[in-house]
Amino acid sequence: MKTVSEKITFDSSLTLESGQVLSGFELMTETYGELNSDKTNAVLVCHAFSGNHHAAGIKDGDKKPGWWDEIIGDNKTIDTTKFYVVSLNNIGGCHGSSGPVSISSELGKPYGASFPEVSVSDWVKTQKMLADHLGINCWEMVAGGSLGGMQALQWAISYPEKVKKAAIIAASSKISAQNIALNEVAREIIRKDQNFHNGEYLAQGKLPTKGLKAARMLGHITYLSESNMRKRFGRKLQDPKNKVDAGINYEVENYLQYKGEQFAKSFDANSYILMTKAMDSFDPAKDFDNDLVRCLQGIQAKLLIASFDSDWLFPKEYGLDIQMSAIKAGIDSSYVELNGDYGHDSFLFYSDQYASALKNFLNSNG
Amino acid sequence: MKTVSEKITFDSSLTLESGQVLSGFELMTETYGELNSDKTNAVLVCHAFSGNHHAAGIKDGDKKPGWWDEIIGDNKTIDTTKFYVVSLNNIGGCHGSSGPVSISSELGKPYGASFPEVSVSDWVKTQKMLADHLGINCWEMVAGGSLGGMQALQWAISYPEKVKKAAIIAASSKISAQNIALNEVAREIIRKDQNFHNGEYLAQGKLPTKGLKAARMLGHITYLSESNMRKRFGRKLQDPKNKVDAGINYEVENYLQYKGEQFAKSFDANSYILMTKAMDSFDPAKDFDNDLVRCLQGIQAKLLIASFDSDWLFPKEYGLDIQMSAIKAGIDSSYVELNGDYGHDSFLFYSDQYASALKNFLNSNG
Repeated sequence: MKTVSEKITFDSSLTLESGQVLSGFELMTETYGELNSDKTNAVLVCHAFSGNHHAAGIKDGDKKPGWWDEIIGDNKTIDTTKFYVVSLNNIGGCHGSSGPVSISSELGKPYGASFPEVSVSDWVKTQKMLADHLGINCWEMVAGGSLGGMQALQWAISYPEKVKKAAIIAASSKISAQNIALNEVAREIIRKDQNFHNGEYLAQGKLPTKGLKAARMLGHITYLSESNMRKRFGRKLQDPKNKVDAGINYEVENYLQYKGEQFAKSFDANSYILMTKAMDSFDPAKDFDNDLVRCLQGIQAKLLIASFDSDWLFPKEYGLDIQMSAIKAGIDSSYVELNGDYGHDSFLFYSDQYASALKNFLNSNG
Repeated sequence: MKTVSEKITFDSSLTLESGQVLSGFELMTETYGELNSDKTNAVLVCHAFSGNHHAAGIKDGDKKPGWWDEIIGDNKTIDTTKFYVVSLNNIGGCHGSSGPVSISSELGKPYGASFPEVSVSDWVKTQKMLADHLGINCWEMVAGGSLGGMQALQWAISYPEKVKKAAIIAASSKISAQNIALNEVAREIIRKDQNFHNGEYLAQGKLPTKGLKAARMLGHITYLSESNMRKRFGRKLQDPKNKVDAGINYEVENYLQYKGEQFAKSFDANSYILMTKAMDSFDPAKDFDNDLVRCLQGIQAKLLIASFDSDWLFPKEYGLDIQMSAIKAGIDSSYVELNGDYGHDSFLFYSDQYASALKNFLNSNG
């Protein structure tokens, strides 16, 4: 699989949904496979909350492959012998694209907390600029899970003629009060870390890793299902030899502690806040008097809306709500409820059922 | 309603389930109504995780009544014109009974983190000592919700001849990996507060209120249901005039911030850790080769097991699991699934259906 990593600089200024302006920005991208001569085989994959541009393959030195490696690759569901797959780190992120850890040319130091609020529409706007840069006039498919699925939906709404198919997986047209509440608790934990310094921790030479760790531990519970945790851990006591902390009794505690610790080493606290705020604010119907049917009416892409039965963070009602509105809007849309062993995280993992739904959709006539 | 608050001192030493010994201890108690001459009308109510002895009525200066005031009182579900209701703060708590904020006679200062681990069995043991002190040979009913329901179940197991009826509400015979995980995140948040000082914050003149606040915000989400939060808050934006924090956008965030703040003023961080650990470790079947049926076989009390349909923290499967084991054990047990508007917290609030189930149970022939 031909893989190209490239950081692309956009010099033109970008007015964000909030009204704030970035004078220019960078996008860290990764592509898999080759663009055909008429540029009609391009697939955009959009990352979820903590993902990044590295969607497939194993990079030198990494232990784990990209976040959608089970789906993207030669002869896989999104077959890179046929399709040219484009992935990127969204702005506001912390893996190479412009975000809180990037150096601001105006400030001469990292943006930190001053990096502007970003939204799903903003990301889609930058992705459109990326498509133009790559000479891609229309995506064969835009796909993503969770916050990535929201981007796929926004693409179909914002640029009806530029997307043939949108795969909206484990996603929602707007999140619930409970989701917002969980995000706010995570933000609260991060903000109250003694090293957070109102988001200016880099300038202070500090990192709020304790807060990030605990926030991720909470997130991790919401990404898994109760039944998955029951099967994997149940009430098994942790072997004292491998305890990461003396206060731990159960395997599940040890696992979360470990996962939180790992995450805190590789993610930025301000990005965590920006990304969750973007998730909270996503609600494309708000520009259509809160009428999702009207909001979807302009869509020309075919939609695939998929939910997972074990997902309690973005349960199937969210997917069904989009599907019902799509039906009323008279657009071409298909809904499927999939079995998933991993709760919300099921969208990341291969299953025959999931792969066949996505593959048939991608290979269908647009 | 005659109400008596009394702190009772027990001078005899108490060996805890952990093997640690308290040389003596105090129980903060509150009673409602009057004990009849043959002492056969006593009802013990056991508090949940963050509750205390103050179960009913409004105390001078308080805005809110006791935690089960909708259920306990003259002519209410647990009718204090007929029954003598006993309530207490459990040891390890922070509202008057011996716990981390109490002065240790050995140390000459508050126990702090050195207060020993407590368990549901330990609480029941101290409650039995309280019954003996009050001259109550047999409870007409022991009742509680959530962690309180676990105590009611443990009573029926530990002292078969001392309980006529046990009402086990919104409870479980053991919590799930997901519950343990949520508790561990709360503990992690508290432990990493810069003012926690390994639990010795009182000696340092500090309070880990930020950690307690965020832990409670998380807890609060789990006590409410998704549908309750949707109805109450939905995606309504917070009126800027009443924002408790500038970073807030939605009403639900403001509500949680406020609730967390209030809680952090009145609860102790070490108690939070002890109480959640007691919840994690509750598993009476563990003494019976993990066979709940055998564990329940010695029970002589009649059981009422009640779950609420909107409870996602302790879902109905937990109650049904106890009921199925009770049936197999051949003991007298009844199960009911109730409508509850408040998720897990539904056990705190009156509804016709709930009150009538509990009242009929209490007034039935034992």
